[in-house]
Amino acid sequence: MIEQMSCDERFLMLAKELGYDIYGENTAGGHYAPLIRHHDELYVSGLVPRMNGKIQYPGRVGQELSLSDAQAAASISAMRGLALIVDAIGSLDKIKSLLRVTVYVKSTADFVDLSDVANGVSDVFSHVLGDAGKHTRTTVGVYQLPKNAAVEVDMIVALRPSVL
Amino acid sequence: MIEQMSCDERFLMLAKELGYDIYGENTAGGHYAPLIRHHDELYVSGLVPRMNGKIQYPGRVGQELSLSDAQAAASISAMRGLALIVDAIGSLDKIKSLLRVTVYVKSTADFVDLSDVANGVSDVFSHVLGDAGKHTRTTVGVYQLPKNAAVEVDMIVALRPSVL
Amino acid sequence: MIEQMSCDERFLMLAKELGYDIYGENTAGGHYAPLIRHHDELYVSGLVPRMNGKIQYPGRVGQELSLSDAQAAASISAMRGLALIVDAIGSLDKIKSLLRVTVYVKSTADFVDLSDVANGVSDVFSHVLGDAGKHTRTTVGVYQLPKNAAVEVDMIVALRPSVL
Repeated sequence: MIEQMSCDERFLMLAKELGYDIYGENTAGGHYAPLIRHHDELYVSGLVPRMNGKIQYPGRVGQELSLSDAQAAASISAMRGLALIVDAIGSLDKIKSLLRVTVYVKSTADFVDLSDVANGVSDVFSHVLGDAGKHTRTTVGVYQLPKNAAVEVDMIVALRPSVL
Repeated sequence: MIEQMSCDERFLMLAKELGYDIYGENTAGGHYAPLIRHHDELYVSGLVPRMNGKIQYPGRVGQELSLSDAQAAASISAMRGLALIVDAIGSLDKIKSLLRVTVYVKSTADFVDLSDVANGVSDVFSHVLGDAGKHTRTTVGVYQLPKNAAVEVDMIVALRPSVL
Repeated sequence: MIEQMSCDERFLMLAKELGYDIYGENTAGGHYAPLIRHHDELYVSGLVPRMNGKIQYPGRVGQELSLSDAQAAASISAMRGLALIVDAIGSLDKIKSLLRVTVYVKSTADFVDLSDVANGVSDVFSHVLGDAGKHTRTTVGVYQLPKNAAVEVDMIVALRPSVL
């Protein structure tokens, strides 16, 4: 039963399904840190959908990219965030909630289904973290993103008291 | 005297003036939470100017929308944020300050009076919360927003020590 | 040796090099606060590259502005942030890390080297703060910014325990 699995087990299963190498992308560009912990909070840098060293689904939603492309890109950014947390604190089961998730979507001027793109992020958190995937969310349509990415996601994470 | 009223009384009075149904919009799309509390902080999701189930003042500032339209939209987003806080903790009088308010404005390429739009948010906080409405603010002009909204506002709120 | 200098000394030296009047720009527009402290965190408002009362390098990166113009603009926003912190707590040597730095860049639709612009911010923090300049970063390309600025930067700062 998937409900009886730990967050970490569900994460590894989803990573396998998506073909995501969780040990391959845990780096930032060098001028900043991918993640900083402060007390019981983790701040995670803005993450573009990079996999195997390459931006996946580059382009603009509503132009080169469909909604489902954008959702796939969004889910990769979400998985990268979870991979960074595993790397930093050892287990996703230490997460209490996601205080803030901001989803930046590079769209055309007319593409208004931005919330549907962001659901690609929310669905990963819900699936992997269960109740601990509870999060507030801000979704905006931006003009451009680093390296022509279609989606970028950052977050602030709260840890369970037992972790401290 | 308006200064002698509580924050909650000023909120209700302003809501009445704006014709805002404060009990009607306290929901998120289902994939995320409108608000999460962590210690003495509240994280509030990005809020578009929805009232009675419908986005008010949809469109792009500088094109379909004037500055005063955009300010009206901004004030609705601000009121929605306050309504969510009332719903979560029972009273606006528990607020100490607003640590971060981010105002996203969907404008034309040439519309630079973004700060004037954001003042529509700041003025609501100042009017309703008085000194506790003190906030830092970031205002940016974005390309698109969910559901063709003109403005989106998110925030991080600090509560008074007595609330804990 | 620059390594043996305090953060404050390096800040003053860099301010002199950039011709930056650190006592001239520590104000917000009046409707909000430039900085709010909460426990051991400082929230700093979105800062545009204003110097001597005037936006420096106004315009759009990739159009009127080159990458190096944008980096110069970015470094002014970063210096303004540091100046506000000095003003609020007396010394940059009290900083532990920068939990969140968001860099908004106004670019053309095709300009994808946004991370290079944001390095103009990161390099200031690294140079002035050393290890305490460690930060998470989110960089996005927006459509417009207040007063036609090319760059806007906001941040959340963590202070050292000894400061409390």
